[in-house]
Amino acid sequence: MNTKLERTKVFRDPLYGYITVDYKIISDLIDSKELQRLRRIRQLSGVSMVFQTAEHSRFTHSLGAYQMANLILKNVEGIEVLNEYEQILFLCSALLHDIGHGPYSHAFENTIQDSHEDMTIKLILSEQTDVNRILRICPTLACDIAAVISHNGKFPLIEALVSSQLDVDRMDYLSRDAYFTGAAYGHIDYYRILRSMKIVKHKVLIRASGVHSIESYLMSRYHMYFQVYYHPVARAYECILEGIYARLKDMVEANETVDASIEAFLKVVRDNDDVLSYIELDDAYVNGFIKQLTKSEDKILNTLANAFQNRHLFSFVDLNNNPTEETIQEIKNKYNEFTKRYYYKETTVSAVAYLHSKKSDINDIKVLLPNGDVKSLDEYSPIIKSLTQTSYKKVDRIYYFED
Amino acid sequence: MNTKLERTKVFRDPLYGYITVDYKIISDLIDSKELQRLRRIRQLSGVSMVFQTAEHSRFTHSLGAYQMANLILKNVEGIEVLNEYEQILFLCSALLHDIGHGPYSHAFENTIQDSHEDMTIKLILSEQTDVNRILRICPTLACDIAAVISHNGKFPLIEALVSSQLDVDRMDYLSRDAYFTGAAYGHIDYYRILRSMKIVKHKVLIRASGVHSIESYLMSRYHMYFQVYYHPVARAYECILEGIYARLKDMVEANETVDASIEAFLKVVRDNDDVLSYIELDDAYVNGFIKQLTKSEDKILNTLANAFQNRHLFSFVDLNNNPTEETIQEIKNKYNEFTKRYYYKETTVSAVAYLHSKKSDINDIKVLLPNGDVKSLDEYSPIIKSLTQTSYKKVDRIYYFED
Amino acid sequence: MNTKLERTKVFRDPLYGYITVDYKIISDLIDSKELQRLRRIRQLSGVSMVFQTAEHSRFTHSLGAYQMANLILKNVEGIEVLNEYEQILFLCSALLHDIGHGPYSHAFENTIQDSHEDMTIKLILSEQTDVNRILRICPTLACDIAAVISHNGKFPLIEALVSSQLDVDRMDYLSRDAYFTGAAYGHIDYYRILRSMKIVKHKVLIRASGVHSIESYLMSRYHMYFQVYYHPVARAYECILEGIYARLKDMVEANETVDASIEAFLKVVRDNDDVLSYIELDDAYVNGFIKQLTKSEDKILNTLANAFQNRHLFSFVDLNNNPTEETIQEIKNKYNEFTKRYYYKETTVSAVAYLHSKKSDINDIKVLLPNGDVKSLDEYSPIIKSLTQTSYKKVDRIYYFED
Amino acid sequence: MNTKLERTKVFRDPLYGYITVDYKIISDLIDSKELQRLRRIRQLSGVSMVFQTAEHSRFTHSLGAYQMANLILKNVEGIEVLNEYEQILFLCSALLHDIGHGPYSHAFENTIQDSHEDMTIKLILSEQTDVNRILRICPTLACDIAAVISHNGKFPLIEALVSSQLDVDRMDYLSRDAYFTGAAYGHIDYYRILRSMKIVKHKVLIRASGVHSIESYLMSRYHMYFQVYYHPVARAYECILEGIYARLKDMVEANETVDASIEAFLKVVRDNDDVLSYIELDDAYVNGFIKQLTKSEDKILNTLANAFQNRHLFSFVDLNNNPTEETIQEIKNKYNEFTKRYYYKETTVSAVAYLHSKKSDINDIKVLLPNGDVKSLDEYSPIIKSLTQTSYKKVDRIYYFED
Repeated sequence: MNTKLERTKVFRDPLYGYITVDYKIISDLIDSKELQRLRRIRQLSGVSMVFQTAEHSRFTHSLGAYQMANLILKNVEGIEVLNEYEQILFLCSALLHDIGHGPYSHAFENTIQDSHEDMTIKLILSEQTDVNRILRICPTLACDIAAVISHNGKFPLIEALVSSQLDVDRMDYLSRDAYFTGAAYGHIDYYRILRSMKIVKHKVLIRASGVHSIESYLMSRYHMYFQVYYHPVARAYECILEGIYARLKDMVEANETVDASIEAFLKVVRDNDDVLSYIELDDAYVNGFIKQLTKSEDKILNTLANAFQNRHLFSFVDLNNNPTEETIQEIKNKYNEFTKRYYYKETTVSAVAYLHSKKSDINDIKVLLPNGDVKSLDEYSPIIKSLTQTSYKKVDRIYYFED
Repeated sequence: MNTKLERTKVFRDPLYGYITVDYKIISDLIDSKELQRLRRIRQLSGVSMVFQTAEHSRFTHSLGAYQMANLILKNVEGIEVLNEYEQILFLCSALLHDIGHGPYSHAFENTIQDSHEDMTIKLILSEQTDVNRILRICPTLACDIAAVISHNGKFPLIEALVSSQLDVDRMDYLSRDAYFTGAAYGHIDYYRILRSMKIVKHKVLIRASGVHSIESYLMSRYHMYFQVYYHPVARAYECILEGIYARLKDMVEANETVDASIEAFLKVVRDNDDVLSYIELDDAYVNGFIKQLTKSEDKILNTLANAFQNRHLFSFVDLNNNPTEETIQEIKNKYNEFTKRYYYKETTVSAVAYLHSKKSDINDIKVLLPNGDVKSLDEYSPIIKSLTQTSYKKVDRIYYFED
Repeated sequence: MNTKLERTKVFRDPLYGYITVDYKIISDLIDSKELQRLRRIRQLSGVSMVFQTAEHSRFTHSLGAYQMANLILKNVEGIEVLNEYEQILFLCSALLHDIGHGPYSHAFENTIQDSHEDMTIKLILSEQTDVNRILRICPTLACDIAAVISHNGKFPLIEALVSSQLDVDRMDYLSRDAYFTGAAYGHIDYYRILRSMKIVKHKVLIRASGVHSIESYLMSRYHMYFQVYYHPVARAYECILEGIYARLKDMVEANETVDASIEAFLKVVRDNDDVLSYIELDDAYVNGFIKQLTKSEDKILNTLANAFQNRHLFSFVDLNNNPTEETIQEIKNKYNEFTKRYYYKETTVSAVAYLHSKKSDINDIKVLLPNGDVKSLDEYSPIIKSLTQTSYKKVDRIYYFED
Repeated sequence: MNTKLERTKVFRDPLYGYITVDYKIISDLIDSKELQRLRRIRQLSGVSMVFQTAEHSRFTHSLGAYQMANLILKNVEGIEVLNEYEQILFLCSALLHDIGHGPYSHAFENTIQDSHEDMTIKLILSEQTDVNRILRICPTLACDIAAVISHNGKFPLIEALVSSQLDVDRMDYLSRDAYFTGAAYGHIDYYRILRSMKIVKHKVLIRASGVHSIESYLMSRYHMYFQVYYHPVARAYECILEGIYARLKDMVEANETVDASIEAFLKVVRDNDDVLSYIELDDAYVNGFIKQLTKSEDKILNTLANAFQNRHLFSFVDLNNNPTEETIQEIKNKYNEFTKRYYYKETTVSAVAYLHSKKSDINDIKVLLPNGDVKSLDEYSPIIKSLTQTSYKKVDRIYYFED
C-alpha cells in the first residue's frame, strides 16, 4: 500500500503548477476506469452555457482535491498526528470523493434518488470496479475510505478535511472554477489558509491571526454561488435536462417505447446498485442519446432535445423583482397539465444552503485564540456573525419553456 | 447586415476579460447550430491525455479569434482602410474559420481526405446550414467569407489577418492553449503586437521597434509545438483513433457489418458533401460509438476502443535517441501484416511545418524600418534568420500498440 | 487644452497592460516636477517593512488613477453627459489628486496639520509650480480642478468619480497594492464594475445586476485595510517616524539646534504655504536627514533614527487579546514623562473609518433597479446592510519602544 | 549555525507566494544592516524611468535568490550530495551575493573601479559589518561564502548554482523584473527547470527532456536584455549619473570645492576598503546630494542634477539606423572639449555579453542524454547553436545632452 513510485510523477496544473504523486496506489487509482470516466463529466454541467470557458471536468478537480490533501500533509501544523496509513487513507479519499457523480449531476441525482456520495461509496465497495480491485492491496482500505466519505465518525479528522465547511473539495473547486470561468472572485489564498490551520486533539482549528483568510474564503464562496453556480442561465439549461429525464421516466413507467439507445440509463433508473451500468453513464452518453432524441417521435422529447442541442433555453422570471400577478398568470396559461410537467418549474435557492448542510454548519470552523481558548467562527468574527444572522439572500424564479 | 444590438453583448473570457459583440449578425452566428456544435469538439483532441486541463473547446477559441479581430479593428494603425462591409466580413471570417473541423480533427482529416478549411467553406456555402441562412441577409457575404477562407486573393488584407504566419487564429490559440494547459510558454504580448502592426497599402507591416514581440511570439509557437501539440503521449492517443478509423473504413469497404451506430460517420466517409451528416459528428458522437465498440465482436475494434476509453496508449520509440536496430526489429516482430496496419505507425514531425505552409511562409512577415523601407523578417532579425537557416528540429517516432 | 499628441503615448503597466495618453496636456503634466516628485514617495510608507515588495510609488498610482478615469470615459454608459472640457477636467483631476502628499504621509500630515488634499489644492493653484504653469493654457482649468478636489459641489459627477466610496482612486489602489504586496485580496473586477455603472442625471448608479461586483469590492477593501494598511508592523514603523517628527518639532520650539540639514522641513513646519519648500520633501529627503540623525547628539533622535534605519521596530500589545492590567502597567513603567512622549503610543483603528468619512458614506452608492427605482446600497444588499449595522471590528493597540 | 527557528518565518512574495526561512542565521542575516540597506537600492536603477513600475529593490531580489536556493535544495535530484554545512553555505551565499552593490550600480562601478562582487566579498570579510559578526558563529563560514562569491573553485557545485549561466540570481531576477515591469517576457518556468536539473558528480546537468525549458529561459533572457535592461531611455538616465560622477571626481582631483554633502562618497572614491562609508551609500544618499547639487554653483553639476531630478534625459541616435555623417557631426559640434566630457557618450552593447562572461559561457550548461552521455547545450539544441553562431545583435548609440 505504501509502495512509492521510482520517480515522483507530475501532472501540470494551472492552479498549483504541478500535482505530484509519490505513492504507486495513487497513480494506479488515477489510471482506473472510474477515475478516467470523470474526464467525460464536466465539473459545472450547464454553467458552460453562460461562462463558455467552464469546460473543465470532474477529473481535473479530483486531481486538484488530491493535491490539496497533499499540501495539507506538507504544510499544516500538527498534521503529523496522522500515521502513514491514515495519510494514504486521506489522499485516497480526496482523490475518490467524486467518482459517484453522474452526468450533469444535479438533474441526474433527482432522477435516480441517490446522492452522488452514496454512489461513490457503492463504487468503492463494489467488487466489480477497478478502484476496488486496486484498493484491495490493503484489506481495510476500501471500507475505511467509505467510512470517511459517509462521515460515520471513525476518522473524524480526515472526515473534516475531506468534507466540511473548509475542506480539500471546496478549496480546490472555488479556485478552479474561478480560473476556468474567468470569474474575478473565487481566488482563495490557500497557502495562507493552510498556514492558519492547526490540528489540536484531532480537530482542525484556525489561528486567530488567520481568520481574515477564512472570511475572504467564505465571501468568495458566497460570490461564486450567486454569480456562477446559481446563474439563472445555467439553471435554465438544467431545466431542459430535468424535463428530458422526467419525460423519459414517465414514458418508461407507462411502458411507452423510447426511440433512442438508453439501456444503461434505464438499468440505473431501475436499479441503483448496478454499478457497471452506472459507470457507462457520462456526459458523452447523455449527449449521445439526446442527439438521437432530436429526431424522436415524442413531441416533448423531440422539442427538449433540440432545445438542449442548440441552446434554446427556458425563459425565467425573477420573483424578487416583483412581477405582477398578471405576468405570472400569463406564463402559467401557456401550458396544460401535461406540458406544464416538463415545461414549467418553480425554483428556490437560498444562501442558507451553503452555510448549513446536513453534515456541517459554519460553526464547525473553530478559532484558536493566542491564549489557547477556542471560539466558534461567528463568535469571533463580526463579519461572519452578520452573515449568519441577517436575512439570507434568496433566489426565487419561475422557469418556463416557450416552443 | 450592419444592424447593431441594443446593448453590447459580453462573454466573460479569462484571456481578454470580456469578449464584446456589437453586431446582431455576429450574435446570430454565435447562436447557430454549426457554431454551437464546436462546444462539443475539443480544441486539442488527445492533448488532454497529457495536459489534463486542456479540455477547452473549439467554440471558445472561435470566440477568441473573433475577439482578436475586434481588437485589431480597434487598435491597429491604418486598419481604417477597411470599410464597414469589409470589417464585418473580417469579423465573420474570424468567427467561422474553424466550423469545418471534425471531431478529433487530425485523425479525422486523414480519413475523409478533406481539409477542415474545405469543410468550412462547404458549410458556409451550403443552403442547408444555419450559418448560411444567417449570412444570406446580405447577398455577397457568404461567398466573400468563403473567398477569404480559401485565400483566393480577392481580399488580401483580410486573408492575411485571418490566416497567415501572424493571424487572429494563432494569436488566440497560442495564448489560450497555454492558459488551459498551464504551460509556461505561449503567453504572447498581443497588445504589443497589435501596436507594432501598421497597415500600408493593404499589407500588414511590423514596425522595427516591435520586432522583439514577433520574435517572442515565434519562439512561443516553437515551444508550444514541441512541448504541447506534438507531445509524444498526445500523438499516442491519436494513434488509437487512427487505428479505429482505419479499421472501420476497411470493414465497410469489405462489406463487413460494424456493430455500432455510425451512420452519420459512414455517410460522411462516402460523401464529403453531406453537410447535414457532417455536423452531426462531434467528439460526443465519436465517444459514443467508441463506447459501443468496446463490446464489438471485431477483435481490433474491441481492443482499440477499450484502449481509447481507458487510456491504454500506444508505446513509442524516439528515433533521435538512436535505438539499436535490434530494438526496432523486436517491435516490428510483434505484428503480422494484418495487425501492423492498425497497431504500428511511423511518424515524422518537423519544425519546418510551422515555418512554411502551402499558403504562407515566415517571410510573409515584413518589417517597416524607421526610414520607410521594408525588409523581410529574416533579413532584419538575426534570431529569426538563424531559426530559418539551421537544421530544423525533427521528431521521428515509432508508435506501437501492445495488447 | 484639447490638443492631441501626434501618436498615442503608452506606459507599460502590469495592471492595465498599458496606460494610454492622447492629450498633450496630460503628457505635460506627467513630466512636471510635482508629478515626477511622486516617484520618490512610496505609496504605502511603512507597509514595505512587512510586505517587502510593496515598494511602488505614488507616481505609478497617479498614472493608474488617470487610466481608470480614461476607462470610465470609454466604458461607462451615460458618461457622454460630460463635454470635452469636463472630460479633460476629470482626467487632470484624477492624475493630480495625490500631488499634495508628503513623504511617509500619515505621520507627516499630523505634523504639519494640513491634509494632503489641502496641499494638493495649494500646489495646483500656486503660480510657482510647473503644474499650474501647464494648466494656465486654459484660464479656468486650475480653479476647476481645485474645485473638484475640494468637493465644493460645482462638478458633482466628476467629484464623485474622483473621490467617493467608489472612485478612480480606490479602484486603482486596491488592485495595485494587492499586486505589489502579493496579497491575495484586493483583486477587483473593475471592468465589471464599470459595466455596472450608469450615469443618470449626473449621478453614478449601479445596476442591480452588478451589485455583486460592488459587494466584492467592499469586502476586498475591508480585507486590504486590516491585512495590509493597518498591519501592526507597518504601524510600528510609522510610530518611529512620528517620534522623530515630534522630537524635531519640540526641539525647534525650544530653540535647540538640530544637527542635520532639515531646512526645507522646518520651513514647511513653520509655513504651510511655502510650496517650493514642500515639493523638496520626499522620501529621499526624509531618509537623508534620518541618516544624518543616526549620529545626532540628541539621545532620542539618535535612537529613533537608528531604529528607523535598521528596522528595530516598536513592540505592541493588542488590547483585543485582553492583556492583564499588570502587563500594561509594566510597559508604562518603562518610561518617564519625557521618553514616553516619543516611545509610547496608544492607537485605535476602526472599520467605521472606511465606511463613513466626512465627504461620503457607504450609502452614497445607489442601486438602479430594473424597474427604474433607486435604492441605497444597504437597503438593497443584505450583506452590506449587515456590514454597516453590526459592531465594527476595532483595533486597539499599545505601541512601545524598547531601547 | 544550524539552529532552527521555533516556527518557520514567512515573507509574502508575489512570485513564490511565500519565502520561507527555517534557519536562525538566515533570519539574522536578513535583519542585518547590510541587507536592510539593499531596501534603499533599486534593482534596476534607471529602468524605472521607462517602465515606471520597476521600483523594486535589491532587497526583494536577494530574498528571491535565497528562496530559489531553498527550492533547489527541496526539488533538485542529487542535491543531497551537499551536507548541512554546505546547504547553509549555499543559502547564505545566495542571500548575500548582492550586498556589495552600490547605488545606481553600473554608473557607480565605473567610478570606483571595483566590481560589486569585490565589494560583496569585502563586506562579508570585514570585521566591521553586521553580516560578518553574524557569520562568525561558525569560524569558516564567512571565508567560505567569500570563496563561493569569488569562484575560487573550492565549492564548484555551489559556485555554479550561485553564479553561472543558469543560477539562482538570474532565475529570480528574470521573473521578478518581468513581474515588476509588466513586461510580457521573462516569465520562466522555474519549477520545470528545477525538475530538469540533475546533480551528477558535483555538476549541474540538464536532462534532455527538459532542454525546452532552458531554451525558453535563454530566449526570455535575450528579450529582457534588449527590451528592458538595455532600453535606450534607461541608458539615457544612467548617462546623466555618469556625467555627475565624472564631474565630481574631476573637481575633487582639481581640489575644487563641491557644494554638497558627499563625504561618504568621497571617502569611498579615495579608499575602496572603507566599508563603513560604503554602506552609507544608497539611492537615498545619491538622490540626497543630487538634490543639493540642483543649486550647485558649478554649471555642469547644476545642469545635470536638475536633469536627473526632473527627467530631462540625454537624447540619442541609433547607429544601426544609419544616420548620415552630417547628423553625427552636427551633434558633435554642439560641444567643446570640456562639455563633451560630461554631455556626450558613445555606447556599445552586444548580445555576446550575456553568452560569454569571464566566469562562464553558454556551454557550461550540459545536457544529460537518456543513455547517460553528456553534451554541451549548443551541440544538443539547434536553436541554441544558431543563437551562438550567427552574428549577434549589437546596439551602438550616441548619447548627447542638450541644455
